[in-house]
Amino acid sequence: MTTDTTVLDGLDFTAFGRGPGLAVADDVADLLFREARTAAAFTPDEVSDERIAAVYDLVKWGPTALNTVPLRLLVVRTPEARQRLAAHMSEGNRERVLGAPVSLVLAADTGFHTHIPTLAPHMAALADALEGQPEQRESMARTNALIQAGYLIVGLRAAGLAAGPMGGMDADAIDQEFFAENGWKSLLVVNVGHVEGTGTHRARAERLGYAQASLTV
Amino acid sequence: MTTDTTVLDGLDFTAFGRGPGLAVADDVADLLFREARTAAAFTPDEVSDERIAAVYDLVKWGPTALNTVPLRLLVVRTPEARQRLAAHMSEGNRERVLGAPVSLVLAADTGFHTHIPTLAPHMAALADALEGQPEQRESMARTNALIQAGYLIVGLRAAGLAAGPMGGMDADAIDQEFFAENGWKSLLVVNVGHVEGTGTHRARAERLGYAQASLTV
Repeated sequence: MTTDTTVLDGLDFTAFGRGPGLAVADDVADLLFREARTAAAFTPDEVSDERIAAVYDLVKWGPTALNTVPLRLLVVRTPEARQRLAAHMSEGNRERVLGAPVSLVLAADTGFHTHIPTLAPHMAALADALEGQPEQRESMARTNALIQAGYLIVGLRAAGLAAGPMGGMDADAIDQEFFAENGWKSLLVVNVGHVEGTGTHRARAERLGYAQASLTV
Repeated sequence: MTTDTTVLDGLDFTAFGRGPGLAVADDVADLLFREARTAAAFTPDEVSDERIAAVYDLVKWGPTALNTVPLRLLVVRTPEARQRLAAHMSEGNRERVLGAPVSLVLAADTGFHTHIPTLAPHMAALADALEGQPEQRESMARTNALIQAGYLIVGLRAAGLAAGPMGGMDADAIDQEFFAENGWKSLLVVNVGHVEGTGTHRARAERLGYAQASLTV
């Protein structure tokens, strides 16, 4: 298996500066995936709510099961809110939350089903059916919101922002702290801001190659 | 809250054809999110293993917890393998699998921990610690592989391919059929190929707006 060709499936990807096998230019592939790094430290530059909204308005179009789009964002911005969040992060992640211009708690809305009549009118009856199935709803919400978390991280980068996703936290405590009334379940925290260079001093870690990560039948 | 400005945070995004609040050009935002649709029918054009590998080699760089990268791909290509997969899809999804040039079963590798010494050398001891914690491993694998599923769907589009993700399937039966020996857990199936136009006849469904999907503190 090789991918170092610029012609695949009869298409010449060298036209317009596209990388091998890709339909986007190399600088886009670099921005979104190849050069992007998980940021641990940020410049003091602010990130406005409008920038976060622009990212959301891009990635909301990504597909989810039955168009349920259960991802929700808690935008943590004020010094007081940051302290409340940092208290529930694992020790190594507290300073990262306190040092970022803004942190997002990505959450799954277990009450997503109430929007089904709007989001998937042909399945409107499912809203009532799911009302009495909280476990099924939580499973659907988590699965689809995690897929959307992938879209969101790519979307932040597409907006020229650096993302620092972190799973080390007391999710139940965060839910009690912020989501006691709305039924959101926290999935991960993403620090967002601007960085100098790649925003990290660590050498890039290895990844598994395609042959290690796939089987063909 | 409005995002219909082309100047945010003092940056003018109209330069170089970038959309409001974005660092990528409008055609890229359209390709990856805004115009892309879940494809239900494909042209007969083939999708080579090299194309799939190029997508993997792009999205493998996306962040996961401890760089565990637990997403695995089963590439379902032969007529016999398609029939085996289609038998475990929900009724409405069978013809979609049989009609796609290639289908990917996205799976979470519960044995991901054996790669930690390579992928996160500073955490190498975790490989042994996780050996006796199968439930913890499955949870970590599922969470991070779902985030990677989001990256992969964007990556397929970045390669100019149409994606048709589907969750309607008997996941346990697929695991028994294909993954009895390697411990992979199927998450969703994504049909991959080329489409005429957007690949769907349905009008685009609504999405929740930023104000409905977020809170700021």
